[in-house]
Amino acid sequence: MHAGPPRPYPDPSAPSAPPAPVTVLGLGPMGRALASAFLAAGHPVTVWNRTPGRAGDLPDRGAAVAGSVADAVGAGRVVVACLRDYDAVRAVLEPVAPTRWEGRLLTNLTSGEPARARSMAHWATAHGIRYLDGAILTPTQVVGTAATAVLYSGAHEVHEAVRDTMAAVGGTGTYLGADPGRAAAYEVALLDLFTTSVYGVAHSFALASAEGIAPDDLAPFAIGISGLLSEMIPRFAGQLRTGDYPGERSTIASAATTIAHLIDAATAHGLEVGALTAAKGAADRAVAAGHGPDGLPRLATVLRTGKPAG
Amino acid sequence: MHAGPPRPYPDPSAPSAPPAPVTVLGLGPMGRALASAFLAAGHPVTVWNRTPGRAGDLPDRGAAVAGSVADAVGAGRVVVACLRDYDAVRAVLEPVAPTRWEGRLLTNLTSGEPARARSMAHWATAHGIRYLDGAILTPTQVVGTAATAVLYSGAHEVHEAVRDTMAAVGGTGTYLGADPGRAAAYEVALLDLFTTSVYGVAHSFALASAEGIAPDDLAPFAIGISGLLSEMIPRFAGQLRTGDYPGERSTIASAATTIAHLIDAATAHGLEVGALTAAKGAADRAVAAGHGPDGLPRLATVLRTGKPAG
Repeated sequence: MHAGPPRPYPDPSAPSAPPAPVTVLGLGPMGRALASAFLAAGHPVTVWNRTPGRAGDLPDRGAAVAGSVADAVGAGRVVVACLRDYDAVRAVLEPVAPTRWEGRLLTNLTSGEPARARSMAHWATAHGIRYLDGAILTPTQVVGTAATAVLYSGAHEVHEAVRDTMAAVGGTGTYLGADPGRAAAYEVALLDLFTTSVYGVAHSFALASAEGIAPDDLAPFAIGISGLLSEMIPRFAGQLRTGDYPGERSTIASAATTIAHLIDAATAHGLEVGALTAAKGAADRAVAAGHGPDGLPRLATVLRTGKPAG
Repeated sequence: MHAGPPRPYPDPSAPSAPPAPVTVLGLGPMGRALASAFLAAGHPVTVWNRTPGRAGDLPDRGAAVAGSVADAVGAGRVVVACLRDYDAVRAVLEPVAPTRWEGRLLTNLTSGEPARARSMAHWATAHGIRYLDGAILTPTQVVGTAATAVLYSGAHEVHEAVRDTMAAVGGTGTYLGADPGRAAAYEVALLDLFTTSVYGVAHSFALASAEGIAPDDLAPFAIGISGLLSEMIPRFAGQLRTGDYPGERSTIASAATTIAHLIDAATAHGLEVGALTAAKGAADRAVAAGHGPDGLPRLATVLRTGKPAG
């Protein structure tokens, strides 16, 4: 299934309507940012949080603070959930009578695994709740600006119905189709990249520090390295699509040698080397399978436990 | 020691001189790219490689192919080495008589560990060779263009003497000071970031594939994630400089929860989780040391083996 190009929010072809009432469940940093964005876009906003006193300046800016989840759901046309995890969403919504949801829609932006998103959608449908799953790909600070990126998946009619309201979040919204687990699947893969890379940033600063390099001296060059990734990612995609892995730029064999040197250098400074060891293991398995002369994208095919090579 | 701002190559204040003869030792992909860039800039170029027949189209473009290392050294004013590792440089240069080096300079762009660069500089000086160490931070394909980034360290007078010649490599050259291991130290830290991030890219594509997401569908969002790194790196530098790690954007505690979910998701698909486990271990140690509410840059302080927390 192809995601299709991102569509601009709001849809310029849509008729304009008065901003719908929105409820935000969950007032962690992201929930507060969402409520703030809806307020800024002129929506009537009701907020609720399990622990009271987390609304910050939202009441001063016009948000109503609901005394119960049922009241919160009743106050919105679009109910946006942004809680700790899917279990929390289920626990919060379980006691709300299905009749409360009449004429309302639930957009669940809580992070979690695809299977949880699918079972949540199943549960919601069984309770008569029109449900859309979603994932926010950008940091809290940019929510409400053009830099925001949000993925949605689930029933098409629900996406169409919440689309103009969710435009208040700003930036680019992408609808990924009817499988409610799709947005979570993308989110998991992208958080995987984010987590590993950020660990790499931390490790790089630690290794530099051990070599007596000040953080501010390393930073501009580290930014340059991060810029190389944005050029490599389309090449990874192209090679994985075609199954052809030319080693013209750099080979897995030479990467394996480099990583061995890095492990030595980091170990000599007393730094842990778990991520480098994982990278070395993947490169070594690829070399053992005869892929040494191939390009780095081939590494994506040798990451299954106990099943080296592709 | 502060690296200082990158200086443009060539130095606009330098008097112009005819392009000096250049020798390139080593004709791997990077060595060939370097020789090509020197030819393009009008330098007389002599190349040498241990295994003959690797010169490609360089002879047709005017490069001389030396029959021995001694002849190659004798043909250049600036000798650029780009070999497999420092051992290879030493093995190649050991038989060359010191008298061959009179009036010549060696720029060693071979990758390796800082200690090896320092001992190579020591050896070179003992042999009467004016030596500069260096590291190329950009891929082979961009050598000779404005996008090239090269670091140099070692004797200041040698850097000044090779500076105009090395301008042919293009882009930005940064001199890091007299310690010949400095360029290699930066390179090791930056290759650490590069390796871990590229492994993260491969893992992200593998996880997406396991979820049925096509590489071309993931790529644009993965590029977006890589863009977040360039914003995070200066924040890492700033927090590591000040030792103050505000958790306003995201906390280590919440990252630890997210990583646990990622490990579950990857494991369920039969993918290895070495890098994620390393990241989880660091986050857990930070939380155990009371740094759970801190921002992610604090992770750089808990990566020493057996010495959790800072």
